[in-house]
Amino acid sequence: DILAAVERHFAAGPLAGQRVLVTSGPTHEPIDPVRYIANRSSGAQGTAIAEALLRLGAEVIFVTGPADVAPPDGVALHRVETARQMLDAVQAALPVDAAVFAAAVADWRVREASDRKIKKQAGTLPALHFDENPDILATVAQMATGRPGLVVGFAAETNDVVENATAKRARKGCDWIVANDVRPETGIMGGAENAVTLITSEGAEAWPRMGKRAVAERLAERLAAALG
Amino acid sequence: DILAAVERHFAAGPLAGQRVLVTSGPTHEPIDPVRYIANRSSGAQGTAIAEALLRLGAEVIFVTGPADVAPPDGVALHRVETARQMLDAVQAALPVDAAVFAAAVADWRVREASDRKIKKQAGTLPALHFDENPDILATVAQMATGRPGLVVGFAAETNDVVENATAKRARKGCDWIVANDVRPETGIMGGAENAVTLITSEGAEAWPRMGKRAVAERLAERLAAALG
Repeated sequence: DILAAVERHFAAGPLAGQRVLVTSGPTHEPIDPVRYIANRSSGAQGTAIAEALLRLGAEVIFVTGPADVAPPDGVALHRVETARQMLDAVQAALPVDAAVFAAAVADWRVREASDRKIKKQAGTLPALHFDENPDILATVAQMATGRPGLVVGFAAETNDVVENATAKRARKGCDWIVANDVRPETGIMGGAENAVTLITSEGAEAWPRMGKRAVAERLAERLAAALG
Repeated sequence: DILAAVERHFAAGPLAGQRVLVTSGPTHEPIDPVRYIANRSSGAQGTAIAEALLRLGAEVIFVTGPADVAPPDGVALHRVETARQMLDAVQAALPVDAAVFAAAVADWRVREASDRKIKKQAGTLPALHFDENPDILATVAQMATGRPGLVVGFAAETNDVVENATAKRARKGCDWIVANDVRPETGIMGGAENAVTLITSEGAEAWPRMGKRAVAERLAERLAAALG
């Protein structure tokens, strides 16, 4: 609204006047009316990033799947459920100065998703086949015109973190990858901390293990420096 | 603990001295460390039933999957994730005077669940195959010895509600089925109300559409009358 726009105009902070898109949370891909495939993402990291960007004065557009953690106050909020809905909401939010894709988007959707509940029948077991979902990060990172000045992707890796995330950065065409080590034995998944390696054109930079809010603040500061 | 046991001993209410098991919430069946299959169950109905039973003086053992709604205070709480874990927790809670199986348990688990995150590879699409999960309701309802005096199942139906739920009651061997009409157009799924038909040995009894707390109170009163 007008008041918010005026506040932003006069906002202090290194990101004042910058428009930043953040995606957050999991996506849900329906199997039938009562079942779906989900990702283990609470939305905590995405919400923390949006809050850190707001504190630095940014205008934040927040596109979120069905997350456990509530979205922050003060963002332009768009709630979605599936990967395709998330891509639509992201494209509707462009142009932006920077985009941070923190959502855990489903790579696949169920090909034979059913309008009716799939019934258990004696002696038969269902099988599911999948179609590939749109790659939201790659789609935006490889835009010929109107690409955000800085595109940041995330990678949850269970092995060979730096190698996999570096390859992902090149494959997607994004500027940075925030790689997170989610091997079960780290206890990261679903916890309060992240073990981040930031992958940029300069290489890999291992951050100490820290809380999600600290990760968000460090990332927001890096973003402000890059956009400044 | 001792104080709680003493309180229960002197508790008023028609269910004082009765031990009732309630299952609630969805189960999650892992695909890999970051993906899982879930059911659309908030746990709201199960929590409301446990609260209503507590108000009538029952001792409540509450076995819950990863629900959105918090479990009630005053229950013996057991948190689980998968259907097999839920069965284990249910069997450990026996004997009970009555058991209300309000959880939305996954019928199937993923056969090829992976310890590593399944990677997206160009040109290949995964397929999932399933194994049948244990049928918790049928397992308890058909116990040769030590069966709870009253076994109540739930059915979420998208079509032919009474026919499907009546057949389910016979197939499972339970005493009652609380059938819920979850056709998408009813708006029931994920909402605050339920459209319940209670299936007993007497037949089908359609309840007016009402809030989940009202459904819980009516069910708890019926349960008290049946056990009294």
